[in-house]
Amino acid sequence: MPRYALKIEYHGGPFAGWQRQSGQPSVQEAVETALRKLEADAPGIAAAGRTDAGVHATGQVAHCDLAKDWDPFRLSEALNWHLKPAPVSILKAARVPDDFHARFSAVERRYLFRLISRRAPLTHDAGLAWRVLGALDGDAMRAGAAHLVGRHDFTTFRSTMCQAQSPVKTLDEITITEHEIAHGTEYRFVLRARSFLHNQVRSIVGTLERVGAGAWTPGDVRSALDAKDRAACGPVCPPDGLYLTGVGYPEDPFA
Amino acid sequence: MPRYALKIEYHGGPFAGWQRQSGQPSVQEAVETALRKLEADAPGIAAAGRTDAGVHATGQVAHCDLAKDWDPFRLSEALNWHLKPAPVSILKAARVPDDFHARFSAVERRYLFRLISRRAPLTHDAGLAWRVLGALDGDAMRAGAAHLVGRHDFTTFRSTMCQAQSPVKTLDEITITEHEIAHGTEYRFVLRARSFLHNQVRSIVGTLERVGAGAWTPGDVRSALDAKDRAACGPVCPPDGLYLTGVGYPEDPFA
Repeated sequence: MPRYALKIEYHGGPFAGWQRQSGQPSVQEAVETALRKLEADAPGIAAAGRTDAGVHATGQVAHCDLAKDWDPFRLSEALNWHLKPAPVSILKAARVPDDFHARFSAVERRYLFRLISRRAPLTHDAGLAWRVLGALDGDAMRAGAAHLVGRHDFTTFRSTMCQAQSPVKTLDEITITEHEIAHGTEYRFVLRARSFLHNQVRSIVGTLERVGAGAWTPGDVRSALDAKDRAACGPVCPPDGLYLTGVGYPEDPFA
Repeated sequence: MPRYALKIEYHGGPFAGWQRQSGQPSVQEAVETALRKLEADAPGIAAAGRTDAGVHATGQVAHCDLAKDWDPFRLSEALNWHLKPAPVSILKAARVPDDFHARFSAVERRYLFRLISRRAPLTHDAGLAWRVLGALDGDAMRAGAAHLVGRHDFTTFRSTMCQAQSPVKTLDEITITEHEIAHGTEYRFVLRARSFLHNQVRSIVGTLERVGAGAWTPGDVRSALDAKDRAACGPVCPPDGLYLTGVGYPEDPFA
């Protein structure tokens, strides 16, 4: 069976997450249902990142096996037709080798987190960013984040439900940029690693927000990391601002 | 009664427009209802731009008269509290002189239109931009737009429902910028004038899209303008991409 990689964008709001769960809507189910409109016995699919409930994607990657030899462009168009009106969109489809695996072949995941500091409630960005009321210190958040870059035991920043065998991960990048918006400031956190632990990004951003607000010092982030204790983590922030923006492979299947 | 100016952001999706209409939800009604939670007999309010159904704002301005001497910050916070969960947000409130009128004192209106050219359906931007399938030529759209800048009879680009006394308006700016997005391009149209005719922005953008698609030449825009005939206009584009971004006054009430 020919194998295809799909680059997928979705609004996480209406879904209980990527992964199929009985009785709850999932992005995986939405895509599999669309695939089965094309081929009734299409097998299940696997994705690079199993995003949580409410988490968005602009560059999720999944792979599927189909019986027919589909033109990739027509495949993406047909899937988008059947996905309507769910807020899930196939940005691109590509034929890939049989040994390509969206999850196990991936060598990098990239996430964006949008944090907005503003008194006024969000309107257009409601559900698409995490809003906090107080002013934040971007330099302090960057100083705190610097302690987390590199190879560390991230036990503090890992959900107790995390199923990864080891808490040791290498965080290749945390970049925090500031963008002035009407009567507020948006902070964009870009995180990059080979792989992440469950809730790692939201645990990190929630902790760095405490640093930005002045409740924690940047050095407190180092102490929390060194504690290797989930209880030392700051509050886990809501999923609304989190986006899986891209997945890296040794060779880009969509190039 | 002390008079206050309100800078208002809203998602136009759930509303039949700014203006109060019996039996249909309007932004004006939402704000007036919130005001009457503060003062039961607060009079009705007036806004700078009577946006149509589905049109958004990030910088609408309205004024209101209240009996009490409200601290402007507390007024905005109280209104936002009562506006929940409607996607309407008071960005700022300010005390203004009694002769300030949100509509009649305004000397400039600024609009943004977001047009996205992409095969894949929109997810996060659904309802927040107009998506077209085909590729567009930004330079051709800019050449077409150049014919519209300045003082003209805009009868062609005016709704037959328009109640303005004269079709002659001075368009001070149309700037069109291109932004690469994942597997597509976003075109941002910025338009600026003392005032606009009903449906003028959507008539202009819908016509310029035809130029971008190659169906019209830039010179056809000139011919359409010169025709002074509504039938010569291109298709009026949908409201989803349109934002009232700001209103200018001789003195900025929010400075």
